[in-house]
Amino acid sequence: MKKIILLIALFEFSLFVNAQLVSSTKEQRPNIIVFLVDDMGWMDTSVPFADSVYPLNKQFHTPNMERLAKEGMKFTNAYSSPVCTPTRASMLSGMNAAHHGITNWTSPIKNKNTDNPDDQFTPASWKINGLSPVPIYDSTTYATTFPHILQDAGYYTIHVGKAHWASAGTPGASPLNMGFIINVSGHAAGHPQSYLGEENYGNLTGKTTPQAVPDLEEYFGTDTFLTEALTIEALKALEVPIKNKQPFYLNMAHYAVHIPIMEDKRFIKKYIEKGMNIVEAKYASLIEGMDKSLGDIMAFLKRKNIDQNTIIIFMSDNGGLSMVPLRGGNENTQNYPLKAGKGSIYEGGIRVPMLIKWPGVAKSSSINRQQVIIEDFFPSVLEMAGIKNYKTIQKVDGQSFVPLLKNISFTAKERAFIWHYPNKWISKDNLGINYKSAIRRGDWKLIYNMRDGSKELYNLINDIGEKNNVAKSYPDKVKELAKELSQQLRSWKSPMPIVKITGRFVPMPDEL
Amino acid sequence: MKKIILLIALFEFSLFVNAQLVSSTKEQRPNIIVFLVDDMGWMDTSVPFADSVYPLNKQFHTPNMERLAKEGMKFTNAYSSPVCTPTRASMLSGMNAAHHGITNWTSPIKNKNTDNPDDQFTPASWKINGLSPVPIYDSTTYATTFPHILQDAGYYTIHVGKAHWASAGTPGASPLNMGFIINVSGHAAGHPQSYLGEENYGNLTGKTTPQAVPDLEEYFGTDTFLTEALTIEALKALEVPIKNKQPFYLNMAHYAVHIPIMEDKRFIKKYIEKGMNIVEAKYASLIEGMDKSLGDIMAFLKRKNIDQNTIIIFMSDNGGLSMVPLRGGNENTQNYPLKAGKGSIYEGGIRVPMLIKWPGVAKSSSINRQQVIIEDFFPSVLEMAGIKNYKTIQKVDGQSFVPLLKNISFTAKERAFIWHYPNKWISKDNLGINYKSAIRRGDWKLIYNMRDGSKELYNLINDIGEKNNVAKSYPDKVKELAKELSQQLRSWKSPMPIVKITGRFVPMPDEL
Repeated sequence: MKKIILLIALFEFSLFVNAQLVSSTKEQRPNIIVFLVDDMGWMDTSVPFADSVYPLNKQFHTPNMERLAKEGMKFTNAYSSPVCTPTRASMLSGMNAAHHGITNWTSPIKNKNTDNPDDQFTPASWKINGLSPVPIYDSTTYATTFPHILQDAGYYTIHVGKAHWASAGTPGASPLNMGFIINVSGHAAGHPQSYLGEENYGNLTGKTTPQAVPDLEEYFGTDTFLTEALTIEALKALEVPIKNKQPFYLNMAHYAVHIPIMEDKRFIKKYIEKGMNIVEAKYASLIEGMDKSLGDIMAFLKRKNIDQNTIIIFMSDNGGLSMVPLRGGNENTQNYPLKAGKGSIYEGGIRVPMLIKWPGVAKSSSINRQQVIIEDFFPSVLEMAGIKNYKTIQKVDGQSFVPLLKNISFTAKERAFIWHYPNKWISKDNLGINYKSAIRRGDWKLIYNMRDGSKELYNLINDIGEKNNVAKSYPDKVKELAKELSQQLRSWKSPMPIVKITGRFVPMPDEL
Repeated sequence: MKKIILLIALFEFSLFVNAQLVSSTKEQRPNIIVFLVDDMGWMDTSVPFADSVYPLNKQFHTPNMERLAKEGMKFTNAYSSPVCTPTRASMLSGMNAAHHGITNWTSPIKNKNTDNPDDQFTPASWKINGLSPVPIYDSTTYATTFPHILQDAGYYTIHVGKAHWASAGTPGASPLNMGFIINVSGHAAGHPQSYLGEENYGNLTGKTTPQAVPDLEEYFGTDTFLTEALTIEALKALEVPIKNKQPFYLNMAHYAVHIPIMEDKRFIKKYIEKGMNIVEAKYASLIEGMDKSLGDIMAFLKRKNIDQNTIIIFMSDNGGLSMVPLRGGNENTQNYPLKAGKGSIYEGGIRVPMLIKWPGVAKSSSINRQQVIIEDFFPSVLEMAGIKNYKTIQKVDGQSFVPLLKNISFTAKERAFIWHYPNKWISKDNLGINYKSAIRRGDWKLIYNMRDGSKELYNLINDIGEKNNVAKSYPDKVKELAKELSQQLRSWKSPMPIVKITGRFVPMPDEL
């Protein structure tokens, strides 16, 4: 009963997240759409994010992303966490993953640590149940979400698609507790059981897993691909605020392009005809289906005559999967020229495509090479909405990238970017996967390997592919970055694995 | 793809259901809550709906219904259909079940006739896929729903709980297509797989049926009973319109007290201690849990200081289940003094508890003995909202009961009430169950048995228990009512079973 009473407290929640200082020109507040793709790599697009066009850019067909890039600003140094829940929790809380402590993906089942068992380490005390809007749930991080603040300031907040902020059995599992007025298909799962309407998106009697996608029964038995169904539902939900002339925030969080890699039959044909590997062809069709959704949304905004007052932020939640046989081709080539992929601390795991269209503010066809990271979304979206002096439970780590949008020549003060993955994502260590931390400052990136205490140093300006570990040549830089990384992790009380044989935490990088 | 295009047309739908003639005093438009219970019988309450207190009234404990009755008007001759989907479709469309043709419950699976197979009859061509907001789906009835009209007139429309208007794979499966801005847990299923948070309301890997309740993942693994979870979600959803000072319509449609009859452990103890049959004790706990929800909602309205501007309409969707062993006790005693129960054309199947609180309009502690029926909800709710001259695809059969609320001595013009159940609900015919039609005019009620063409006549003023079939004593009344019933069914083109041996429709009652 205690839990019930506390759950009841939830719907009073918005009262103490005070709506603050709404922009004076209420009528002109922009609509904001975050178009968040799941597991989309930096190279999974015909928009080149690297300095030149690579073969992968020719493999994928994303005309609507091209259009968005043309109508807005492209960020070539945008970062997420190596896996999804940490990214999603950072976005909603404005906290770095090493700070909120949700460093791995959360299980749809409560109290279940998704770390693989390990001979050397006992798991870190990360927040295995995810993000929470109330303080009383075990192994969760209590934070104020920016959609709550938007909602309190009069925004109509809509979540569509994958949520995956918390485990089932905790309030964070429901977008309705995270500041969203509307939720379509968001829950505790991190991927869909099926993309196919013909398979009821997994809702099949006796065959259902926690990944069966909720809320789409009207499409059961039809040939509506999940990406399409979610798009239709999003546009349906948008009718309400548009009609009421209420500004909206849409969290358009596609399940695509996460596994299971299933063909989107609307787009598969040309990739097969190109002679592509069948898995990669299916993947490319998932990508193009996602791009079609972006195009449909842009067309809808135009039709409703609100495209000039709507900001679109395109983002992915981590790097592209690069493990074979889940992907086709050769292992760890899927994000080339970046190294490795999802789960890795290397650029392939954390550098993601990011585009922003803000009519009248962000210059069209502009390119911004400054570094931004997922926790920056929190203060940025609130600044876009004109909301100031809001209160949060947590200390927000992110910095607004709005100045970068407003002025292409604006240079942000240099700061350090931190990644922390004290977890075992897959059973065998792979390139940059399992038990890593990293820090980037300027073009220098230091990686800390918890297994053996070793450090790698790369200079990304010359070596985006992280091929040349120059740690030995720059011991002072290693020391400086190890110190900064360690100090930050200590100050955030970041979770660390425990060395079984000593019973002690893995040392911080500056202790070795 | 054709279907997809038509689905896309859905979110333009609200544009051609024109919002019409909203009451001039916009700020004072009342909030409206329909509190719809599933399978609750006329006697399943401590509020006596009969002329005196019966033993069943002492068996159940519903203090909040008592309070609602005290603060509003009690309707003692309120009717539904014998089973749930026909009732729910009548409510949403304003059409009699014999008119909309959704005469039986719809399967969660599309194109599946839920009629039991029969030796004598081929199934009637009823609308097996249910209600639809668009015209192009097979075996559906296309109608404008009143929530759509409310939404277009500026109401914030919320559905919580059981929907069950249409089969999965058709748009009517989703409340979001039926005029609701918010949907929590409404889908194509007619009952919950489980009431228990401990059982994830049925969402158990590999054990899931189409009845697994969606949208409640935050309560998985907790001890939150389904009735409680839905109540919390409803109040959470209400925060938005209350904060925005927008009038709301809440369709609070509990899954309780439908099977599976599972104990609500918050309330079971006293019923066990009374020495009740265990199934009946569990059922009584389901009832009291539902009543607790009503109380929580009333307390919430008071706390928000909107109780004086909120109308509450309490209703059930059909009579109480009376079949053993699904229920405890002796077969068909569960609605005594009414005869039979759910599925039956006798009073036990169709007469339901109805209460309305409308502060300042409906007199407190008042009793209205005039007849009303579920399709009356459509024009009544719209009249309460001050919406006039609305357009509907269908011809609405219901009549507003608002005049009855405004003036206790107002006498509505006498009209006929029709029930039509040309279906085989259970495998063996039971008291008034399977292949029946009925008409009530004044206190006379005629029942038509399609099996053998026989007719029964009862005078309900003396014989609420339908014990004395007086058809032989009043042949003219039988003839008159058979004619009126037949004419109405003919004019509505109501579905009729086909006699296998002749290949012809069952004759209308006036043809025999």
